[in-house]
Amino acid sequence: MLSDKVINELAAIVGKAEILLAPEDMIAYSHDATMFSHKPEAVVRPANRDEVAAVVRIAARHRIPLTCRGAATCLSGGAVPLKGGIVLELTRMNRIHKIDPVNRIAVVEPGVITFDLIFRVAAEGLLYPPDPSSMKESTIGGNVAECAGGPKGVKYGITRNFVLGLEAVLADGSIVETGNDVDGDMCGPDWTMLFTGSEGTMAVITRISLRLVQLPQTKKTLLAIYDRLEDAALTVSKTMAGGIVPTTLEIMNDRTIVAVENYLKIGLPVNAGGLLLIEVDGVPSTVEENALKISEICRQCGATAVKIAQTAEEAEDLWRARRAIGAAFGRVAPSKFAEDSTVPRSLVPELVNRMLTIQEKYDVPVFICGHAGDGNMHPTILFDRRNKDQAERAEKALEELHFITLELGGTLSGEHGIGFAKAPFLRAEAGETGYQMGREVKTILDPSGIMNPGKMFFYEGKLH
Amino acid sequence: MLSDKVINELAAIVGKAEILLAPEDMIAYSHDATMFSHKPEAVVRPANRDEVAAVVRIAARHRIPLTCRGAATCLSGGAVPLKGGIVLELTRMNRIHKIDPVNRIAVVEPGVITFDLIFRVAAEGLLYPPDPSSMKESTIGGNVAECAGGPKGVKYGITRNFVLGLEAVLADGSIVETGNDVDGDMCGPDWTMLFTGSEGTMAVITRISLRLVQLPQTKKTLLAIYDRLEDAALTVSKTMAGGIVPTTLEIMNDRTIVAVENYLKIGLPVNAGGLLLIEVDGVPSTVEENALKISEICRQCGATAVKIAQTAEEAEDLWRARRAIGAAFGRVAPSKFAEDSTVPRSLVPELVNRMLTIQEKYDVPVFICGHAGDGNMHPTILFDRRNKDQAERAEKALEELHFITLELGGTLSGEHGIGFAKAPFLRAEAGETGYQMGREVKTILDPSGIMNPGKMFFYEGKLH
Repeated sequence: MLSDKVINELAAIVGKAEILLAPEDMIAYSHDATMFSHKPEAVVRPANRDEVAAVVRIAARHRIPLTCRGAATCLSGGAVPLKGGIVLELTRMNRIHKIDPVNRIAVVEPGVITFDLIFRVAAEGLLYPPDPSSMKESTIGGNVAECAGGPKGVKYGITRNFVLGLEAVLADGSIVETGNDVDGDMCGPDWTMLFTGSEGTMAVITRISLRLVQLPQTKKTLLAIYDRLEDAALTVSKTMAGGIVPTTLEIMNDRTIVAVENYLKIGLPVNAGGLLLIEVDGVPSTVEENALKISEICRQCGATAVKIAQTAEEAEDLWRARRAIGAAFGRVAPSKFAEDSTVPRSLVPELVNRMLTIQEKYDVPVFICGHAGDGNMHPTILFDRRNKDQAERAEKALEELHFITLELGGTLSGEHGIGFAKAPFLRAEAGETGYQMGREVKTILDPSGIMNPGKMFFYEGKLH
Repeated sequence: MLSDKVINELAAIVGKAEILLAPEDMIAYSHDATMFSHKPEAVVRPANRDEVAAVVRIAARHRIPLTCRGAATCLSGGAVPLKGGIVLELTRMNRIHKIDPVNRIAVVEPGVITFDLIFRVAAEGLLYPPDPSSMKESTIGGNVAECAGGPKGVKYGITRNFVLGLEAVLADGSIVETGNDVDGDMCGPDWTMLFTGSEGTMAVITRISLRLVQLPQTKKTLLAIYDRLEDAALTVSKTMAGGIVPTTLEIMNDRTIVAVENYLKIGLPVNAGGLLLIEVDGVPSTVEENALKISEICRQCGATAVKIAQTAEEAEDLWRARRAIGAAFGRVAPSKFAEDSTVPRSLVPELVNRMLTIQEKYDVPVFICGHAGDGNMHPTILFDRRNKDQAERAEKALEELHFITLELGGTLSGEHGIGFAKAPFLRAEAGETGYQMGREVKTILDPSGIMNPGKMFFYEGKLH
């Protein structure tokens, strides 16, 4: 527990009402969307940058661990306060400072909910492309901290590609501004990228300048159904090789289709071996042309049916199915490893084959539901961790999956972050020199190690 | 001079033929494309990464300054060996390891000439967009180190937006790999961005993975002529506000037009107050539509004539005029400040007005020739530094220009880098905390300060 002295200091900054200390609150704030948890000692809810800076200075003075949190939809343990201390909840900082259609930028506070921003900029004819499945709950601050992705990443890129500049509070309470609102241009190293994806281990992000793009004039959604998952995977590499860049190119295997259909009952093809959910956007003539070209490639690769959504409602039903995957999995089993193993897109068929082999070898169900056009495959292993034997097999399968991904030139995480869950494998991806470089830079920025301790480069071992 | 002992150590690595020591060579390697110069003590030309690492270890052991160089077309002093020591010339490392059309990446050594890469990937139906005016001489390594831009930045972004991963040799000779070849996706902070734009102050880049895009099916070039430069500037903000993203949107003022025409004699409108050179690319129907829309906006903003190039030759003539600006300026005056002041694009008209005021106030000619669609205006002050009074006025004009750019929310450098030339103003842009952060991170990576000393965060004062 924090001392009364510390609590009084914090209360003097944010007000007593914005400090949570009750045991039930500590349980609520111990989780993110992984199955790991650890209780904080206090939750502090600052209203603005200066309050953040003052709280950070208190934490620095008393060496109290500080873990930032938005909506805590994180899938890698990033928002779990592993060492207790203070959870800094940033959801009160939810102002949109500016939407500027001429310069195509938005300037926001970290607590803005992603979908709210998308909705607001659409009214100005603009698009903020990153669209994680959690976008209706997750915050921009969390998206930036974890460098979230989403289906639209195939065409537009992930969060990193849209962050032009940041204001952040460093571990000593000083304030730094990085980048600027000049789209893409800037001198020197891009310090913004040191904080984007740093998962609250280097600074607290308090303001974000985001690049926006023109809202596409129109879009079309296609559903391609396959007997064999391998044929769906082949379609991915053939489409990308064909010079077509769809907006999204999502894959689901048989298990995923059944899980979603059981949950939503919207008539998904439960006997299929796999399906692709594809969107193309742009100007009408190009969208039409690309939709037809992609349909043709799907059929050549063995699709038994290709349906083009005829109405906005039909398209929305399909996307609802995609976004429901997380909830649907919750009904299948109580524990999951939701991975975002990402490989070069030409190797999607290879990764699919290797995942099917893993499934058999360890006798654990692998659900595939990824942004395949990005090579980001979202293999998800569902199990019950109370079943010790099953949990052990799931862990072994996961470990093998990670090493296969690296062997194929891929990355452990295309969008969920490293946090705690993937930290044991970070050294293998970064290499020894890169790992030490990460530790050293983090240490220079946070010498006392108060910022989200126990994560990424400072992982200390398994949580039990 | 380096000792015989050091020279023998270096010769044992790269061979005697690849070490230059002659006085005339030291003069040749003392320059980049700025007017500043300082002689090195030796030029070393390694053939591969391992030779680079071995040379770096020798430099580290003896604390010898090490300045990397490609073609030295740098416009901010980045390749000038300010503290003498070794110039590491990387032009022998010019292999293209891989061009992969399915994953749309190229993996190259730093010494590859930018245009050679553009030419090679075009044969595969792909585009590497960054196109600095120096692209026929400059190397990819230099482009990455300085984070070069180019006319196509308006639509596609600058070099930073195309670097997926790097291999680099750190100041102790250890080798780090950052990022990967998975387009856009990656876990953790983007360490690649710590080295991109770091101008050789943090590491020697030895391999680069670049993102490529589909080669556009077609393009069109437009020339819009104005009586008043202000009207050309207004066209820029109106075009961007109109939701059209041209591939390039270049501006030239009257002085620039006359200088280029005197040099090339291709019939540019020498009586115009300003002109815009615009390119649109994409699928034919969209290109046609956007070209017409832009013509209309140009006329509404006061263009006296708008010409659409009818043949590839006509278009190439116009682009030749743009690329000849640097050479044309060389005939006007012996000294220049070639700046890349960049502001939010909505403020292009404001910056143009302020530049015209500066021109009058200090009685120095300001040549404007920028990537206006990016807000990157390239104000260039031409003078003769042997004329002390004129040189002083030019310096004062430059200083005021930098502070106006920052006041407008812009950046000192959209693409040329900080190097030595803009380092006196870096603190004003980065802020005190950001400046100290930069110094600390650089120091952690290069504790002895051997990597390109005297630049960026370690500027020590004017060169005379």
